[in-house]
Amino acid sequence: MENDELVQNMLLELRRGTLSIAVLSQLSMEEYGYSLLKALSEKGLEVDQSTLYPLLRRLESQGLLQSDWRVVDDARPRRYYVISAQGKTVLAKLKKEWSAMTETIQKMLS
Amino acid sequence: MENDELVQNMLLELRRGTLSIAVLSQLSMEEYGYSLLKALSEKGLEVDQSTLYPLLRRLESQGLLQSDWRVVDDARPRRYYVISAQGKTVLAKLKKEWSAMTETIQKMLS
Repeated sequence: MENDELVQNMLLELRRGTLSIAVLSQLSMEEYGYSLLKALSEKGLEVDQSTLYPLLRRLESQGLLQSDWRVVDDARPRRYYVISAQGKTVLAKLKKEWSAMTETIQKMLS
Repeated sequence: MENDELVQNMLLELRRGTLSIAVLSQLSMEEYGYSLLKALSEKGLEVDQSTLYPLLRRLESQGLLQSDWRVVDDARPRRYYVISAQGKTVLAKLKKEWSAMTETIQKMLS
């Protein structure tokens, strides 16, 4: 495999783990798929729709998000997602572990 | 799924992505499996043999590590791993991306 492809695959693996945390952290207020995508992008995290939408459904099926169809401003009906009470509990634990883990890795890399 | 199990699964996913970086970063000097395991543990990263050994073989098959059987101090022959030239190039790229990514997530979480 070429170096670049290798690095891309390893980064994908890395991103996959962090994406759930990022998504949970950005849904304290409700968003629909595309508005969330833009919010993540504005904060520097580029995600494909083909990655984000299945993740939203997975997080909802795990009880970490809840969703509702809404019509806002004459737009077509959209599914809005927001973090659930269980999601908040899980996010708090993930944050703690994430901080500990990044600190550990940071020490190894420096 | 119970919260704890959910969190554990999400953390596993998170760790899977970071473990390759951690391992590459710790193999500038050669180590055998168990000595690497201890080195990682001392730095705060607990890894199972059943996770680490397949990862070492995978990284070697990708050309990022090289290995040799050696006999040191009358011990039984052990396979020693060290980062390859290609591995160093890849690690440098991963470090850069890792820093950018953790900074992005950190901002979202704070």
